Amino acid sequence: MNVVSYRPELSELSYTFGGRPAVRRIQPGTIVEMYTEDCFAGRVRSVDDLPSRVCDFPYLNPVTGPFHVEGAEPGDTLALHFVSIEPARDWAVSATFPHFGALTPTHTTAMLAPTLPEVVWRYDIDAEAGVARYHARNGDFTVELPLDPMHGTVGVAPAASETRMTITPDTHGGNMDTPELRAGVTVYLNVNVEGGLFGVGDGHARQGHGEVCGTAVEAAMNTVVAVELIKGVATPWPRLEDDTHLMSTGSARPLEDAYRISQHDLGTWASEVTGLDALDAYQLVSQIGEAPVGNVCDTNYTMVAKIPKTYLGGPAVYESAHERLRALGRIYLEQR
Amino acid sequence: MNVVSYRPELSELSYTFGGRPAVRRIQPGTIVEMYTEDCFAGRVRSVDDLPSRVCDFPYLNPVTGPFHVEGAEPGDTLALHFVSIEPARDWAVSATFPHFGALTPTHTTAMLAPTLPEVVWRYDIDAEAGVARYHARNGDFTVELPLDPMHGTVGVAPAASETRMTITPDTHGGNMDTPELRAGVTVYLNVNVEGGLFGVGDGHARQGHGEVCGTAVEAAMNTVVAVELIKGVATPWPRLEDDTHLMSTGSARPLEDAYRISQHDLGTWASEVTGLDALDAYQLVSQIGEAPVGNVCDTNYTMVAKIPKTYLGGPAVYESAHERLRALGRIYLEQR
Amino acid sequence: MNVVSYRPELSELSYTFGGRPAVRRIQPGTIVEMYTEDCFAGRVRSVDDLPSRVCDFPYLNPVTGPFHVEGAEPGDTLALHFVSIEPARDWAVSATFPHFGALTPTHTTAMLAPTLPEVVWRYDIDAEAGVARYHARNGDFTVELPLDPMHGTVGVAPAASETRMTITPDTHGGNMDTPELRAGVTVYLNVNVEGGLFGVGDGHARQGHGEVCGTAVEAAMNTVVAVELIKGVATPWPRLEDDTHLMSTGSARPLEDAYRISQHDLGTWASEVTGLDALDAYQLVSQIGEAPVGNVCDTNYTMVAKIPKTYLGGPAVYESAHERLRALGRIYLEQR
Amino acid sequence: MNVVSYRPELSELSYTFGGRPAVRRIQPGTIVEMYTEDCFAGRVRSVDDLPSRVCDFPYLNPVTGPFHVEGAEPGDTLALHFVSIEPARDWAVSATFPHFGALTPTHTTAMLAPTLPEVVWRYDIDAEAGVARYHARNGDFTVELPLDPMHGTVGVAPAASETRMTITPDTHGGNMDTPELRAGVTVYLNVNVEGGLFGVGDGHARQGHGEVCGTAVEAAMNTVVAVELIKGVATPWPRLEDDTHLMSTGSARPLEDAYRISQHDLGTWASEVTGLDALDAYQLVSQIGEAPVGNVCDTNYTMVAKIPKTYLGGPAVYESAHERLRALGRIYLEQR
Repeated sequence: MNVVSYRPELSELSYTFGGRPAVRRIQPGTIVEMYTEDCFAGRVRSVDDLPSRVCDFPYLNPVTGPFHVEGAEPGDTLALHFVSIEPARDWAVSATFPHFGALTPTHTTAMLAPTLPEVVWRYDIDAEAGVARYHARNGDFTVELPLDPMHGTVGVAPAASETRMTITPDTHGGNMDTPELRAGVTVYLNVNVEGGLFGVGDGHARQGHGEVCGTAVEAAMNTVVAVELIKGVATPWPRLEDDTHLMSTGSARPLEDAYRISQHDLGTWASEVTGLDALDAYQLVSQIGEAPVGNVCDTNYTMVAKIPKTYLGGPAVYESAHERLRALGRIYLEQR
Repeated sequence: MNVVSYRPELSELSYTFGGRPAVRRIQPGTIVEMYTEDCFAGRVRSVDDLPSRVCDFPYLNPVTGPFHVEGAEPGDTLALHFVSIEPARDWAVSATFPHFGALTPTHTTAMLAPTLPEVVWRYDIDAEAGVARYHARNGDFTVELPLDPMHGTVGVAPAASETRMTITPDTHGGNMDTPELRAGVTVYLNVNVEGGLFGVGDGHARQGHGEVCGTAVEAAMNTVVAVELIKGVATPWPRLEDDTHLMSTGSARPLEDAYRISQHDLGTWASEVTGLDALDAYQLVSQIGEAPVGNVCDTNYTMVAKIPKTYLGGPAVYESAHERLRALGRIYLEQR
Repeated sequence: MNVVSYRPELSELSYTFGGRPAVRRIQPGTIVEMYTEDCFAGRVRSVDDLPSRVCDFPYLNPVTGPFHVEGAEPGDTLALHFVSIEPARDWAVSATFPHFGALTPTHTTAMLAPTLPEVVWRYDIDAEAGVARYHARNGDFTVELPLDPMHGTVGVAPAASETRMTITPDTHGGNMDTPELRAGVTVYLNVNVEGGLFGVGDGHARQGHGEVCGTAVEAAMNTVVAVELIKGVATPWPRLEDDTHLMSTGSARPLEDAYRISQHDLGTWASEVTGLDALDAYQLVSQIGEAPVGNVCDTNYTMVAKIPKTYLGGPAVYESAHERLRALGRIYLEQR
Repeated sequence: MNVVSYRPELSELSYTFGGRPAVRRIQPGTIVEMYTEDCFAGRVRSVDDLPSRVCDFPYLNPVTGPFHVEGAEPGDTLALHFVSIEPARDWAVSATFPHFGALTPTHTTAMLAPTLPEVVWRYDIDAEAGVARYHARNGDFTVELPLDPMHGTVGVAPAASETRMTITPDTHGGNMDTPELRAGVTVYLNVNVEGGLFGVGDGHARQGHGEVCGTAVEAAMNTVVAVELIKGVATPWPRLEDDTHLMSTGSARPLEDAYRISQHDLGTWASEVTGLDALDAYQLVSQIGEAPVGNVCDTNYTMVAKIPKTYLGGPAVYESAHERLRALGRIYLEQR
């Protein structure tokens, strides 16, 4: 088993997809153990650390990487299987951030009315018990919430020579902020430049659908990713697969366009793997599809389209990459 | 137990909310057994019955009703508990309809490019086995899907003297098309006119999130609703409650506004029932909220915001109407 | 010349399109002299009259009418030519209204952040000089703006048995709030019910594009409308014509859909009157079209698509109704 | 007078803002004579040159530049005054491009319905007479349209280390596609990186509002730009000034957000230059503002907010850069 461990210095964190040299070069088939910082680069540690004071735009939402995958060329697909995602600290934070979030004026939904006040919440993380504890800022209310660790951000270098802030989700991945991106899931990303240059960051101990206030339970993570390269197969938008479901993503504004992209891609994909024609696949997806909301707060909004594989006859996709990586991940976890 | 049965003639079906006299007057506490026609008023019976030929706009999406609830006045809330929703026929239909659906040009998302072709699918319904069978129109593919019966449309007469087509969801309810509206759920609707004048229709044997092709597995239903009246309590947008969750809805365009409305209403509601201040409630909802998509095809789009009651301390809402109606519904089902 | 004068009592004003009996029945060819109240029904008279206190929802945005046009049947088109629009008072008002306007959270773009404060501005109207005088509320700044009188609201009873608040623009017209609806313009509206039942209101001494703060320079008006009926010609969306331009409107959300509807209708119309095929007309409209914004604050947003007739070869449309009504209006004005 | 002439080789054209070294370094006060290619890089020359065949994505919409302005640092503003914009050839082209344009499914407004067919129109340009001649592809219809030369694309290197395709408009400028960007206008752009690195391209012989079919009358241009640097003054979004008007731009989706941004920026700017408070400025802009649509087809949509300087008391903005550059341009044109 080929295992690479990487823990970045703060100065090595990346704030863009594209435009940066790789921090490591890895072979397809490698398992990467990595540490990822939270979306504030660890600078918000208490309720008194207001993000707009302790963080320095654009140094937000750092990712660990990029990793160069040997042999990856434009038109290939990277398969990144998340073997495990574990909170690295016994605390996490969330915050309202000025001009960010779904229920406040933003720089894009620009208004003369004032933005919401900036407030920080600190959660206790008990990884053993599998819970994050919420504390109201005003009053004694407190409640334990189950951990459901995930990564808000995973992506590759964009096409067309672009370099994008990590906070933007688009065809190259980025800050999709979908709770579906948890351990046990394989993410498929199109390779746009040599080596693919993937990065991972923005761990969440848990997150509601849409990340309505703009931030989740933001946590540094110890994360393990198993990597495969699928040659000669392109992927129009980031796709996800777990043991039971196929998922497509769309990231755009308005939100219905994110929905359209994700449903269109999933319908096309379902048509390919079942042999159904486009309209028959559209009809079937219409009746069996879920549409978990990713984010409704980032520079593009993200929707996920999701269907059970069983209703498609349980097809093998991407040359069964998920099954292989899942098995590899299990062996890794047993041996650890 | 006060039980009223009502099976409308075709000519008694209503195509608007508002603007129609009541078909029945009922007392709060009544259980209503009703028959509802499908969205095509039963006119599409085979794959050769194209909706645009056999149906006559605006005679689409009929509801059974309206029912006048004695004592209901503007500023009150109706609680409609769905005791059971059962397919009334052994078949159901779905269709692409010209200029309708999320992945085709529509009258609103007007384009010069052509709309999708009109195609009908007929499903076999086996209520005993609890399945609907999909048949591809092109090829032999077929698959059984679990029944999950629901009503796309429930609403009351609108405020401000308006009369609206049943196909439009808004503050008065209407064609929200959310799969969350299944048996076991209580719907809270604001009373805008004397008697409330509620109606129910557009049964779906099952539906994917967003009703992407524009129609679900459309079915006539035998449905039982238990009704209560909550005096002096207003409800800004339709809300739902089941044994485990509180839900708010929002219906608007673009889709992010439907999301905003539903999340804003749920946050406000959570704040009221927990005593948390607005920002503390916003933060909590942000981490525990689901956002099941209702429809992305109707004249307004619908989003649902949904949180587990347990994380709020299991508060009683609407004077425990749901618990009472749930108990009443169980007794009714046992006695039937 | 057949002239009808009508000045409504306050109690006769209409707050909906549809759902109301006609105040007058008129013959095609009639000139109607009418008085219209402002959007606050005249209740906001000084900067201390806050609309949310002196007005009573839903009694906002009243129209004068409805007028029944003899012989009008579904599938016909009403041509309403605005002969003159003259401010009826020497003052007008504007205001921010809670949860209304493009740069504030609204009931639809629902936010936790606070709405803008409610403030009233009173303008002096000097009809002789043709100016409205703006006075800053905070400080001495004042400036004269040219009058450009128009009606925000004109419409007919909707199709499909609907009744809509006058504030909503849609296929039946309504509160389009376009500055293009000034004297000298003919508006074409589809007849949806017998008699058409048109109404006119919401005069503006002038208005910026989009009515960004939610209100214009709101003024009562003495308005003269010349009416024709075009039998057997339907009109999909409200259209406007003046001596030099053809215009289509679209009212929807998001704003790009209002743009799409208006451009699609204008392209279709241009194709019909020139004989160009759909793509050739699309190309031509793409290079010569203006797109004056109507409103970006109402329940639907409105865009206007506008092209010079000259580039189409100066076609006659709607059986030259505009030319005839324009001539009739001139005679009326000379004789007055 | 400091004049620099630059005519790029095809291989020197830039397809991104950011990520490229300067082609020339110039001093503030310089007049730059440049040649710009059309959006197809000159590859579409007849109606048989289908863009999707002769062009190679992402090599679309090239700009001439970037130009490094000596002394420009982040937080400064570049003033680019367009002295003249003259078609460089006696022909121009327009086209529908697959999945591009406002009235066709696109990659973002993704649909299962087919896109429009790809068609090219070739215009004759008569610079002497000041006209472009349209020819229908199907039939004999032809018409002369007045030239109104403009640049669709002008921008600088983006902030936050980003590199963006030239086709995307955002805070750094880019493909705004507004007809307001014609000769006689000064554009103000924020400096995000040392030297600013501005580029200019995508000339249009004329364009309708919104560029509804996706392309304008696309033309190579000989363009003269006079450049100033305003130290220590930042500019949140691209702004324009001509002899009579101030204009702000906003580029976003949905279109109402582009409108909001532009109106918010213009209101803020009007408040600064008049001393009016925010609400008084909002009210004034609401009544005097125009909102010419830029594009409703690019990756972000663009709106322009525009007010006459006279109603603000004719304030000097940006240290009177426009007046100085306008005068310099006039001298240049006289001496040429």
